Amino acid sequence: MMKPFLDNNFLLHTTAAQRLYHEFAAHMPIIDYHNHLPPRQIAEDHRFDNLTQIWLYGDHYKWRAMRAHGVAETFCTGDAGDWEKFEKWAETVPYTLRNPLYHWTHLELQRYFGITELLGPGTARAVYEQAGDLLRKPEYSVRHLLRKMNVQVLCTTDDPTDTLEWHRQIAADPGVGIRVLPAFRPDKAMMVEDPVAFNAWTDKLAGAAGTSISTYDDFLDALKNRHDFFARHDCRLSDHGLEQIYAEPASRQEIKNIFLKIRGGQNPDALEILKIKSALLYEFALWDHEKGWVQQFHLGALRNNNSRAMRNLGPDTGWDSIGDFRQGQALARFLDRLDSENRLAKSILYNLNPADNELMATMIGNFNDGSVAGKVQFGSAWWFLDQKDGIEKQINALSNMGMLSHFVGMLTDSRSFLSYPRHEYFRRTLCNLFGYEIENGELPGEFEWIGEIVRDISYRNAASYFGF
Amino acid sequence: MMKPFLDNNFLLHTTAAQRLYHEFAAHMPIIDYHNHLPPRQIAEDHRFDNLTQIWLYGDHYKWRAMRAHGVAETFCTGDAGDWEKFEKWAETVPYTLRNPLYHWTHLELQRYFGITELLGPGTARAVYEQAGDLLRKPEYSVRHLLRKMNVQVLCTTDDPTDTLEWHRQIAADPGVGIRVLPAFRPDKAMMVEDPVAFNAWTDKLAGAAGTSISTYDDFLDALKNRHDFFARHDCRLSDHGLEQIYAEPASRQEIKNIFLKIRGGQNPDALEILKIKSALLYEFALWDHEKGWVQQFHLGALRNNNSRAMRNLGPDTGWDSIGDFRQGQALARFLDRLDSENRLAKSILYNLNPADNELMATMIGNFNDGSVAGKVQFGSAWWFLDQKDGIEKQINALSNMGMLSHFVGMLTDSRSFLSYPRHEYFRRTLCNLFGYEIENGELPGEFEWIGEIVRDISYRNAASYFGF
Amino acid sequence: MMKPFLDNNFLLHTTAAQRLYHEFAAHMPIIDYHNHLPPRQIAEDHRFDNLTQIWLYGDHYKWRAMRAHGVAETFCTGDAGDWEKFEKWAETVPYTLRNPLYHWTHLELQRYFGITELLGPGTARAVYEQAGDLLRKPEYSVRHLLRKMNVQVLCTTDDPTDTLEWHRQIAADPGVGIRVLPAFRPDKAMMVEDPVAFNAWTDKLAGAAGTSISTYDDFLDALKNRHDFFARHDCRLSDHGLEQIYAEPASRQEIKNIFLKIRGGQNPDALEILKIKSALLYEFALWDHEKGWVQQFHLGALRNNNSRAMRNLGPDTGWDSIGDFRQGQALARFLDRLDSENRLAKSILYNLNPADNELMATMIGNFNDGSVAGKVQFGSAWWFLDQKDGIEKQINALSNMGMLSHFVGMLTDSRSFLSYPRHEYFRRTLCNLFGYEIENGELPGEFEWIGEIVRDISYRNAASYFGF
Repeated sequence: MMKPFLDNNFLLHTTAAQRLYHEFAAHMPIIDYHNHLPPRQIAEDHRFDNLTQIWLYGDHYKWRAMRAHGVAETFCTGDAGDWEKFEKWAETVPYTLRNPLYHWTHLELQRYFGITELLGPGTARAVYEQAGDLLRKPEYSVRHLLRKMNVQVLCTTDDPTDTLEWHRQIAADPGVGIRVLPAFRPDKAMMVEDPVAFNAWTDKLAGAAGTSISTYDDFLDALKNRHDFFARHDCRLSDHGLEQIYAEPASRQEIKNIFLKIRGGQNPDALEILKIKSALLYEFALWDHEKGWVQQFHLGALRNNNSRAMRNLGPDTGWDSIGDFRQGQALARFLDRLDSENRLAKSILYNLNPADNELMATMIGNFNDGSVAGKVQFGSAWWFLDQKDGIEKQINALSNMGMLSHFVGMLTDSRSFLSYPRHEYFRRTLCNLFGYEIENGELPGEFEWIGEIVRDISYRNAASYFGF
Repeated sequence: MMKPFLDNNFLLHTTAAQRLYHEFAAHMPIIDYHNHLPPRQIAEDHRFDNLTQIWLYGDHYKWRAMRAHGVAETFCTGDAGDWEKFEKWAETVPYTLRNPLYHWTHLELQRYFGITELLGPGTARAVYEQAGDLLRKPEYSVRHLLRKMNVQVLCTTDDPTDTLEWHRQIAADPGVGIRVLPAFRPDKAMMVEDPVAFNAWTDKLAGAAGTSISTYDDFLDALKNRHDFFARHDCRLSDHGLEQIYAEPASRQEIKNIFLKIRGGQNPDALEILKIKSALLYEFALWDHEKGWVQQFHLGALRNNNSRAMRNLGPDTGWDSIGDFRQGQALARFLDRLDSENRLAKSILYNLNPADNELMATMIGNFNDGSVAGKVQFGSAWWFLDQKDGIEKQINALSNMGMLSHFVGMLTDSRSFLSYPRHEYFRRTLCNLFGYEIENGELPGEFEWIGEIVRDISYRNAASYFGF
Repeated sequence: MMKPFLDNNFLLHTTAAQRLYHEFAAHMPIIDYHNHLPPRQIAEDHRFDNLTQIWLYGDHYKWRAMRAHGVAETFCTGDAGDWEKFEKWAETVPYTLRNPLYHWTHLELQRYFGITELLGPGTARAVYEQAGDLLRKPEYSVRHLLRKMNVQVLCTTDDPTDTLEWHRQIAADPGVGIRVLPAFRPDKAMMVEDPVAFNAWTDKLAGAAGTSISTYDDFLDALKNRHDFFARHDCRLSDHGLEQIYAEPASRQEIKNIFLKIRGGQNPDALEILKIKSALLYEFALWDHEKGWVQQFHLGALRNNNSRAMRNLGPDTGWDSIGDFRQGQALARFLDRLDSENRLAKSILYNLNPADNELMATMIGNFNDGSVAGKVQFGSAWWFLDQKDGIEKQINALSNMGMLSHFVGMLTDSRSFLSYPRHEYFRRTLCNLFGYEIENGELPGEFEWIGEIVRDISYRNAASYFGF
């Protein structure tokens, strides 16, 4: 009666769902078109020494859970030993039930290491040793981990100043067998609120572009130089992490003056910030269109809320949350400007606040011009939303208000080589939604047809959308 | 085990739901108190030549789906032939699965034409011919289509300058057998952002009212003249399509000056726009109250986002989406002003962003003064929300925070004579919600009682609320 | 097949859920850490004469339902007789189906009075008499009602000017057997929009503190005096009912001047209001931290929307609703300022608009510093959200984005001594969520473990979090 935890039909609650998943989804390769994996570790085919290194060193999801459980910072980002950190994590895990971490943890233990025990204080030592013994073997190098999950293509996320040396090395190495592409993420080019940081980064950009930057035109030239450089390294996507889209009109002269002010070390005011960000965002969009790239917008995070942690640990260490920024009007204005000039690239809109799901699911329909199926996409459930509920809500909003069939589907957005079961998780959830409606007569039992759609969403839509 | 698609118990997943629907809901007549049907076609008892004409000529839902599927504009709103357009639509349909279009399409084929095959490239020709043969018969005239669905009353949506000649003709024709009433929708009277369009419309209004319009008082007089004219044509409802309610205080003199400025061709500033819209909305509300009409507010659409399409195709061609406008405070202020003067008409609030469902479901309770059951209504799931999920969420919010029993229920909001199965769709969804809770012990199995509530919501509440 | 209404397994739809509830949750005592019960009635061990007095005299939920049903005000808050009021309520009840009132009503009749009939016009007289006969017995005094529900601790909500005499009397009475603690709710100290009301209240505060108040420093001293006084009466919590958090920076001198202006009877402008509220909120937070109290923030209500009712009936009579205020940035800024000074007290954030659930569920994670498990809490579904859907959504958001295991759980927030079955309602809903996932293999069938978590959330987390 009671289904065993995490068995072969995990998340598949109807026979229709099971059939869809096992026959159509399970064996499709993975295109992970947005993540934060370090290319160097792929280039060097890195091996990790233990679970703490691969699981806990960079994972702010786990740190947040540990802090919420009352674990001191020393065991999260601090200098406690690897085993001590793992012990604290293992102590935390049983308390994460109903959080995606609980599922991810046990799915990863099962899929990569064949461990089916539940992680907790009583099993911590055995799990740590068993997984560690495997991780230290050559067949657990990061390339093997990727291959084990059938990863075909992956796109990292890279600063415009990046040399892309590791991407080059990977591309030149016939032994990799996985395409590892860079993605252009110029967030730092828009961090004009902080002229000190901005100018330091701009100097670095000048260095990367082999030029000097005094004026706005210099700045654009250098950025464009890097955009071209990324293109030569097979980049196909840009990405922007923003509170909201900026689309404030301003004359070129105004922007030039604002740039000079910031470049001179002065703080721009709120309106100037808005104007220069708007101008930059527009330029990036033009370049993406010229090159046939896909542009991604990750909207709505409220970041770096804990200034103590920001000082001590820096960004991306688990102090961000979901904001309630206004999204509709500026987003429409931005996309419309590009569309009306026939320069709107393929675009993916991701929202972090699920209250905006329906706004996004309908916004994309305003700019589907019939030129290509699913030109503007409502991106997969992201970050805090990357769990069963969040995935279901995104898929349902897209289904009800757009066209699920042309969805490019899942990505990990992860910093960890062990996160690939999230694609499986997504596919199971997708099949479960279809399966439920087939069983109850809301969809016809046309498995051959619906199975093809499942294959499209799992893999083929992404392959053709990004042109891999 | 697997329920057949779209059978007699479609959407009815418990025996309690099936009993409620078949015994209580199915046979109730339809009051469609808000739609966009062309009265002329009813007056002339129009017949359509084929499915393309009745399905695709005016349906921006279908156009959006086709564009998302990569179909060129020529097959949507362009000059491709009827069969070619239908072929493209039939090619699109299988990709719409999980979108309401998939259900609507097959429900309409079944209910009107007895066609139970799935529409797709392989069946397109046969479906087109079979339905076309029927449509060209006299018993498929629009009046027959309405009668087939047991439509008793329907309210169209009309500009104040409309002559209502077709409504008059219908009222005078004893052969119609369906009450076809106008509804007063003065949106164009508030489009002051565009003085050119506004003044052209104001001239047209002057013509309709047989007067000339120089001042704000002239303008109000002419509008009031048309409001009275609509009342003489048995109008019972007004309707307003707005981003949000406007409730900015201003003196009468200010409004007069703003009007003169606009009438003189000058652009009003943002605050002036807000003030004059607020003033007009308030006047309309007073007239509605005087006449005992119901006022409807459709709030939250972000319209005409694609300026290229706006130029080429005009409004209402599928380029609108869900906005994230602030709704609470101005809405409360507007309703309160009327209530405190004892001049609040019966009102229906519709929101397009489902994130506002709970705001709306609780707002209505602030102005239920005990004078009549369900005086202020939370309107049925609208536009993008008109699908199973959206309907369930609206019903659940209303149930949890208000009083479902007094809900006036469904309307089609449609431009198509084939949309009436949406009432069936709504009733099935409603019965399914009740049925589930009866089966699992969250509601008592009092079928006689709950069946009466189902009848009320399906038909009788609307009949008494609108006074039909 | 059809489950009987409200039986022993009400809301428990799997055997796993039933086992969790009956074995682990049902017998845990109740800590009701936030409600609006009148302490005087506990001190005097009040007995009610009939159901109208205990059910209808102060319950704006029921009044709103009656008004929506078309019942005149005289039967809600007016001077109709007790039986006449009850009759109208009984007439309304069957129409409340799917509203929590329907469940609460029958749960309360069953749990306190053993009445299992459905309330309606046909049963009204019998129910009224049967319950009234019991209520008039000594074993239905309010203390007995609390004991019957196994209430161990309860916290009322009190104005800083309150003498706490009844709390003192209760504390001194060994016969009570229930801890009844005050909570510090200084909302009136921030009602600076209305200088007349503010100054009257400030005079009252001066009296309570035995001082006089001319300056901002005097004002703070008097408030602090009362905060200390509350602490001596075993207060452990503060509470704030706010549209949104205020976190506008201002110098001390500015605040002093704003205070003088208001104290002098002048109206502050919008920015001044924001600044002084921000300053006060920050001071309260410091005191709470010093004393180790828990601070609660109830955010997002749009209050007193009906000015006619406000004039006639005053606040809290059923004219409030859910607002759409911006919550994220100011809330983050407020908490961060305290955190970065190491003065952030344990805090509970409650939102009224469920569209903010995910914002809140992630905001708490920004300030969990590892010092204590669940330091910042996402508060239980509140007011309009206190029903099955609302509870499930809050629990799911917290589960998915935070740590359900450390949740301090349910409170009644009620003015009525009959509201305690809401704890049962919450526990059943919680167990049902766990049970469903255990049955379908999304959680392991570890009843001993999950049962302990259920006990924690039902009772033990609150006991340790508040230090009872």
